[in-house]
Amino acid sequence: MSHTAIAELFLPLLGPQRCLTDADSAQRYGVDWTKVWAPAPSLVLLPETVEEVQEIVRIANAEGLALVPSGGRTGLSAAAVAANGEVVVAFDRMNKVLHFDPLDRAVTVQPGIITQQLQEFAEQNDLFYPVDFASAGSSQIGGNIGTNAGGIKVIRYGMTRDWITGLKVVTGKGDLLDLNKGLIKNATGYDFRHLFTGAEGTLGLVVEATVKLARRPRDLTVLVLGVPGFDEVMKVLHTFQLDIDLTAFEFFSEKAMGHVLAHGVPRPFDTVAPFYCLLEFEQLSEQVGERAMELFEKCVEAGWVIDGVMSQSLAQLDQLWQLRERISESIAPFTPYKNDISVTVSKVPAFVQEVDAVVQREYPDFEIVWFGHIGDGNMHLNILKPAELAKEVFFERCNNVSRWVFEIVQRYNGSISAEHGVGMTKKPYLGYSRSAEEIGYMRAVKQLFDPNNVMNPGKLFDL
Amino acid sequence: MSHTAIAELFLPLLGPQRCLTDADSAQRYGVDWTKVWAPAPSLVLLPETVEEVQEIVRIANAEGLALVPSGGRTGLSAAAVAANGEVVVAFDRMNKVLHFDPLDRAVTVQPGIITQQLQEFAEQNDLFYPVDFASAGSSQIGGNIGTNAGGIKVIRYGMTRDWITGLKVVTGKGDLLDLNKGLIKNATGYDFRHLFTGAEGTLGLVVEATVKLARRPRDLTVLVLGVPGFDEVMKVLHTFQLDIDLTAFEFFSEKAMGHVLAHGVPRPFDTVAPFYCLLEFEQLSEQVGERAMELFEKCVEAGWVIDGVMSQSLAQLDQLWQLRERISESIAPFTPYKNDISVTVSKVPAFVQEVDAVVQREYPDFEIVWFGHIGDGNMHLNILKPAELAKEVFFERCNNVSRWVFEIVQRYNGSISAEHGVGMTKKPYLGYSRSAEEIGYMRAVKQLFDPNNVMNPGKLFDL
Repeated sequence: MSHTAIAELFLPLLGPQRCLTDADSAQRYGVDWTKVWAPAPSLVLLPETVEEVQEIVRIANAEGLALVPSGGRTGLSAAAVAANGEVVVAFDRMNKVLHFDPLDRAVTVQPGIITQQLQEFAEQNDLFYPVDFASAGSSQIGGNIGTNAGGIKVIRYGMTRDWITGLKVVTGKGDLLDLNKGLIKNATGYDFRHLFTGAEGTLGLVVEATVKLARRPRDLTVLVLGVPGFDEVMKVLHTFQLDIDLTAFEFFSEKAMGHVLAHGVPRPFDTVAPFYCLLEFEQLSEQVGERAMELFEKCVEAGWVIDGVMSQSLAQLDQLWQLRERISESIAPFTPYKNDISVTVSKVPAFVQEVDAVVQREYPDFEIVWFGHIGDGNMHLNILKPAELAKEVFFERCNNVSRWVFEIVQRYNGSISAEHGVGMTKKPYLGYSRSAEEIGYMRAVKQLFDPNNVMNPGKLFDL
Repeated sequence: MSHTAIAELFLPLLGPQRCLTDADSAQRYGVDWTKVWAPAPSLVLLPETVEEVQEIVRIANAEGLALVPSGGRTGLSAAAVAANGEVVVAFDRMNKVLHFDPLDRAVTVQPGIITQQLQEFAEQNDLFYPVDFASAGSSQIGGNIGTNAGGIKVIRYGMTRDWITGLKVVTGKGDLLDLNKGLIKNATGYDFRHLFTGAEGTLGLVVEATVKLARRPRDLTVLVLGVPGFDEVMKVLHTFQLDIDLTAFEFFSEKAMGHVLAHGVPRPFDTVAPFYCLLEFEQLSEQVGERAMELFEKCVEAGWVIDGVMSQSLAQLDQLWQLRERISESIAPFTPYKNDISVTVSKVPAFVQEVDAVVQREYPDFEIVWFGHIGDGNMHLNILKPAELAKEVFFERCNNVSRWVFEIVQRYNGSISAEHGVGMTKKPYLGYSRSAEEIGYMRAVKQLFDPNNVMNPGKLFDL
């Protein structure tokens, strides 16, 4: 069907203002942060009501059209890319707070609300939405639900799915389901809320969500510790976790920190260490701070920590966080190959060593930069392109790296995508983390909720 | 098929010691705590390995047999009852700890491990398994997963599903799925772990679980407060929650407490109040205790609290908890009609008032005893049988009550089963909490994982 003919199907429903056919809109709404596939949607739709979304799905089924849900398009797996003439359904105009009750400590929102707006709404009500990550300024809650977004506070607060108490979805068949209705306890059969969370829009469209909020954290304090090796990183984690409720436990290598320092962030202390840990906790009383200092000294005595610093002010806390948060931007000029993987926490040291060994053996001139959320077993592997190497050659070699890394991931019972999802970029590798039987059941579940394959086809797996 | 013929099918696999055909075993393994349906299984099987479970499922499919999974049989919805000649698959012999790593703070267990044994294992390793409820001494983790068990610490620690990081299941088709493998972050498609949790054994059998553990709570402290009304209960909850991380927020009426006092537990303070709240928190520093006292005084000044007491020792903490924990046993002699329902927290006062009004209007001689986990919107409604009323007449009238209560639940978007599940007792009422479309998708999902309907047929819904 021609793009014009497709537009004609939706114009009576949405009018020309919310049925965009221009090239600019196609370019803007057809991509996410991956930029591997060229955007080529046939049309961009901007519904404002649940009823309009249902009607869009009805038309898609009747006419055999493919729909791509679109939130903030900050994804890193191309799950929101429309590269094959699909109809983009963007939720920018469904971005309102619908209901809030302080007693429930929960807010019901439309899917297009931006993560940061949700965080600010919570703060205005003396509460806290704790799922936080680099793209919070533009990602939308609907997209967060689609990928079950995680981020930097997972060790304490869990993933997006842990905060969604209610979910309204329109299935691929066009049914409107009102799942769990904001309840905390509800033992009435299969919990489809959790099936739609992380489904990357392949089962249906999220049209409303009820989100739990938490008590605001108080007196956040950061420790940055220099650590001689990976085994010691794990010992530090274990020592602190038995005693203090950590809100974050991040790690990065000296190499990673070097790139950030080159951008003007000061070194946290003079001693150079191969690895650094960043621990964050609420200093709810002086005793907690004292206890943290005792544990710090214990770790020094045991030889697990070389040096360290504890933030004495919010300004210092922010500065110490920059050591971790600015890694991605500081290595961006080196055209990094990135991979987001996880194993269970205890296996992290051996896993990292194996990956390091294979990459260094095969490509000794590649610089590996590790950082990540070690407290939950999630590491970001980054390999920087040597200056003299052509981009094409580099990425071709990185395809080999992917295969080796995923083979190691599989042997360690890990995940080929810890928090970025599968989309199109990891689709060929899904079998390294999920068995043939599991993928078979996934396909069957997809067909059940979306028999005509209108919902984000070609993402996650092929039918 | 005769019971003997059915036994012949499994004897070569399990031998006569683990293939029980005697009447005693049938009586023992065929029921849960509901006692409404008479136990009548054809056979009780006691597998010891995953392979044996797979073979049992294979035979059931080949021969068209119905399997009923059996854990500690402490359920309150008859989900584990075998009343129609089913084959019971009991997990008593699959009760081992398989793997533990302190760095992971997680333990991998077989499904037959008893909740209390899991709690004790955690304590021995200086950790904590926080899902706790009255039947922890005999319930098994496999059954807890089947019903997504909740209990008294949900406000802080969530439900069973929040602690399961890995799940091995044998589906109704006989496939062995290794779901999520203990990972904290894993964004690789549909998370079937959450589909099997709370499925009441209708999709497959849980054969292994990896369970996350928490830091052990320290210096637990309890406040019991007398409160003039339900609206004030909510204000007290809100006031404390903004400031202190509560590990429990329970409530009970003076009527409920009266029954416990009759069993020799002392009144917490002289003042009589219509309602009582029990708050628990970790007194991690003196400051937290001081803050709790300040909030207590603030609530007194506002007129939300009449009187109260804070535990000064572990012995006093235990005694105060008895006020709440011994309600069920103290009202048991009155043949109570019980219902386990939930709404969102903010709707609790209006909801309770409506239920009270309809029951008192229709049956003014019925005594209503309310108690429950108000912090998560979960209330246990108990109606005591008037001494002079015949049991049959009482329960017939209570059937009317159920209908009225569930109609109110439906209007309040609540749950007809907050934590006990659906099984057979709530099966006729599922439509009050789940829409026809949702139940339709549930049936379809069931058929996908269990096409021959061998897994716990007749529970949750009829096909």
